[in-house]
Amino acid sequence: MAGRTKFILDESDMPTAWYNIVPDLPAPPPPPLHPGTGEPIGPEDLAPLFPQALIEQEVSTERYIPIPEEVQEVYRLWRPSPLFRAHRLEKALGTPARIYYKYEGVSPVGSHKPNTAVPQAYYNAREGVSLLTTETGAGQWGSALAFACAQFGLECEVWQVRASYDQKPYRKMMMETFGATVHPSPSDLTEAGKAILAAHPDSTGSLGIAISEAVEKAAANPEARYALGSVLNHVLLHQTIIGEEALRQFEMAGDTPDVIVGCAGGGSNLGGLVFPFLREKLAGKIAPEIRAVEPEACPSLTRGKYAYDFGDTAGLTPLLKMHTLGHDFIPDPIHAGGLRYHGMSPLLSHIVELGLVDAVAIGQNECFAAGVRFARAEGIIPSPEPTHALAECVREALRCKETGEEKVILTALCGHAHLDLPAYASYLAGGMVDRELTDAELSAALETIPAR
Amino acid sequence: MAGRTKFILDESDMPTAWYNIVPDLPAPPPPPLHPGTGEPIGPEDLAPLFPQALIEQEVSTERYIPIPEEVQEVYRLWRPSPLFRAHRLEKALGTPARIYYKYEGVSPVGSHKPNTAVPQAYYNAREGVSLLTTETGAGQWGSALAFACAQFGLECEVWQVRASYDQKPYRKMMMETFGATVHPSPSDLTEAGKAILAAHPDSTGSLGIAISEAVEKAAANPEARYALGSVLNHVLLHQTIIGEEALRQFEMAGDTPDVIVGCAGGGSNLGGLVFPFLREKLAGKIAPEIRAVEPEACPSLTRGKYAYDFGDTAGLTPLLKMHTLGHDFIPDPIHAGGLRYHGMSPLLSHIVELGLVDAVAIGQNECFAAGVRFARAEGIIPSPEPTHALAECVREALRCKETGEEKVILTALCGHAHLDLPAYASYLAGGMVDRELTDAELSAALETIPAR
Repeated sequence: MAGRTKFILDESDMPTAWYNIVPDLPAPPPPPLHPGTGEPIGPEDLAPLFPQALIEQEVSTERYIPIPEEVQEVYRLWRPSPLFRAHRLEKALGTPARIYYKYEGVSPVGSHKPNTAVPQAYYNAREGVSLLTTETGAGQWGSALAFACAQFGLECEVWQVRASYDQKPYRKMMMETFGATVHPSPSDLTEAGKAILAAHPDSTGSLGIAISEAVEKAAANPEARYALGSVLNHVLLHQTIIGEEALRQFEMAGDTPDVIVGCAGGGSNLGGLVFPFLREKLAGKIAPEIRAVEPEACPSLTRGKYAYDFGDTAGLTPLLKMHTLGHDFIPDPIHAGGLRYHGMSPLLSHIVELGLVDAVAIGQNECFAAGVRFARAEGIIPSPEPTHALAECVREALRCKETGEEKVILTALCGHAHLDLPAYASYLAGGMVDRELTDAELSAALETIPAR
Repeated sequence: MAGRTKFILDESDMPTAWYNIVPDLPAPPPPPLHPGTGEPIGPEDLAPLFPQALIEQEVSTERYIPIPEEVQEVYRLWRPSPLFRAHRLEKALGTPARIYYKYEGVSPVGSHKPNTAVPQAYYNAREGVSLLTTETGAGQWGSALAFACAQFGLECEVWQVRASYDQKPYRKMMMETFGATVHPSPSDLTEAGKAILAAHPDSTGSLGIAISEAVEKAAANPEARYALGSVLNHVLLHQTIIGEEALRQFEMAGDTPDVIVGCAGGGSNLGGLVFPFLREKLAGKIAPEIRAVEPEACPSLTRGKYAYDFGDTAGLTPLLKMHTLGHDFIPDPIHAGGLRYHGMSPLLSHIVELGLVDAVAIGQNECFAAGVRFARAEGIIPSPEPTHALAECVREALRCKETGEEKVILTALCGHAHLDLPAYASYLAGGMVDRELTDAELSAALETIPAR
């Protein structure tokens, strides 16, 4: 017998606080700036978009923030999530490495996104908000927010990037089953959308455009607020329950990761898994290498600029110091819709700059090859986003096969592909395009970053 | 706090034997008959279709059959599966009843089907078979067998009922991702399919037709065997791991079910959950009512005849004593593809005749209403098949609300609807048809049952 397959915490052992890495960092992250004054923004600048509780979490310097009991109750529908040892993948690869994956696809919508959607809906409902607006790429975030709004009696309105809306119609059906309203983006329902459509009538959209639309609608309605599925500090904070659980599960396994790999689009999946491990690393207790994987088509960490830029395409958000490709950069419509974002979490960007996390970019054909390999060995078909991390795991495991090293690899399997199966159909039919961003495209994109 | 949400067994507590109810029944089930001679069939009649190990299980009178270690290893990718207490649904219904659901959607393909697909693939591979053929309705069974074949290096060829093939294209993509080949049924690849297409060029297919096609192809190829996803004794045997786990989980919960409700198409989901509970009931230890729920469009238990009939449309199988609507009955293309079967497991039929299980038929609009209600409360969107059981749970819970009874209700939530979302879209758009089978249609269908 190959040994234990799953490490499962009892629900009574579910973490009861989120971890805020900010006070443990050697330097604080640069603040968001007001685009007009160039000064750091204050809570009042965010009040039209977010409830007070989330604004406080966004700027908090407390190390631990308690998870409200009402949120824990909903989390228990699927949490704690399992940590798997990938015995069958190891065998298929013939590697001496030990591969673990923390699997978030057990959530109602099949990804890690409800970890933050649920508290966001909870705090908004508690402060009397009646409608949340948001953007979504592949639809994981939109369906998570739709589910969370159903739990707390909120209405939910979602702008979904047109490329994904057309490629993956099932996500819209899921959002509607939970009671949400879904629009393709760019839409003619907002000024931001209309402007894009006027310039590019066939636009396949981008997360940046969809954010502009959702922000515009929320700001115009005093009963409404906006919810973001990644990038911001409070979002990464909520996702740290992943890493807190994984730390306890590695104790159960009696093992310690040498390499931790996660895909990074806005950064919440990677941040959520690794921040608790980084706490232990900064305290000198463990020493894992930590690696972000992004698509070659949207390489903000590996080829972007670390600079102040807008979070959205229309320039409605504060300026955020982050790795960015320029706020009106529109990536090719690759299947990993959740990784098609021009920027990166400012907190994660800062941590990359501190040298605590490194990054690599991989093309989608290699990623889907790893996804199919994983599916046939482990049974779970990974969503396109974490196939990026799996591709890097496979590379690492095969390096170990050559060197004989018995490295312990941990990856964030942040979702399954049940609603992304057309991406696999395209890959299996040989129809998937791999196109690296050219230097000329990159230079042109970077020029749109505002000068400061 | 509302109390525990999930009851999870450690993987070291996973049952290591399947339970065979046959020796515990007050009378043995009637044997399958050879259609030519009218005599009970022998193992040699089944050998062209099934490996020896499964034929032995089909006729076994042992109470417990050990689960091979190689099968347990694959089971551990998702088993033991969780038992949930539906606190949020209870609250939404305002019922004093306590509702539990045993959730099989955690499997790689999202249903209970891999519980039997894995051992079937294992025994076939052990006996040197290289290709398995099968039929599938909604696609749950086909994808389960595709996954299982990938685990043991077998090829897999699936005939999918045309209605589901067209309505739910994602299932085909999943089967192909696991490496299987998929054909819509009726197809022009078999004599059985060609005959149907000649008579009904627009046929939407049925499980009975698809079985004929898969059986015909397996019988013609000595390297191939056929795999059935429900109906037969060995299939129900493998599914009893569900009920064995649930019994242990009710011990953890310190509770006992008063009513157990499951949907029944071929009968393996219901049989798998309830046979271990029936063992305890027959031993006088517990006394739950057990209820099968079927669609009004395909009411084999509630309106069919208990008689010897063919398992498939073309009449290639042995004659099985079961509740049947006639072997060439083609039900309306309702969304619960897994419940569109003209017959019923002979073992379950026998148990119904013994008075140990009763049955009810419900129309699909009421079922989907229950499915949406469940999804918005519990997060999981149930596949169309178990919405039938949920509709009956909702009826029971609302009866309890009237009477004040604190009944304990257990239901088999045998799968999620990620790949059946178009069914929900159709329901939400108000476009779902509820059509009860007329008496004239029923009489005509029953006339095709062979006289004996």
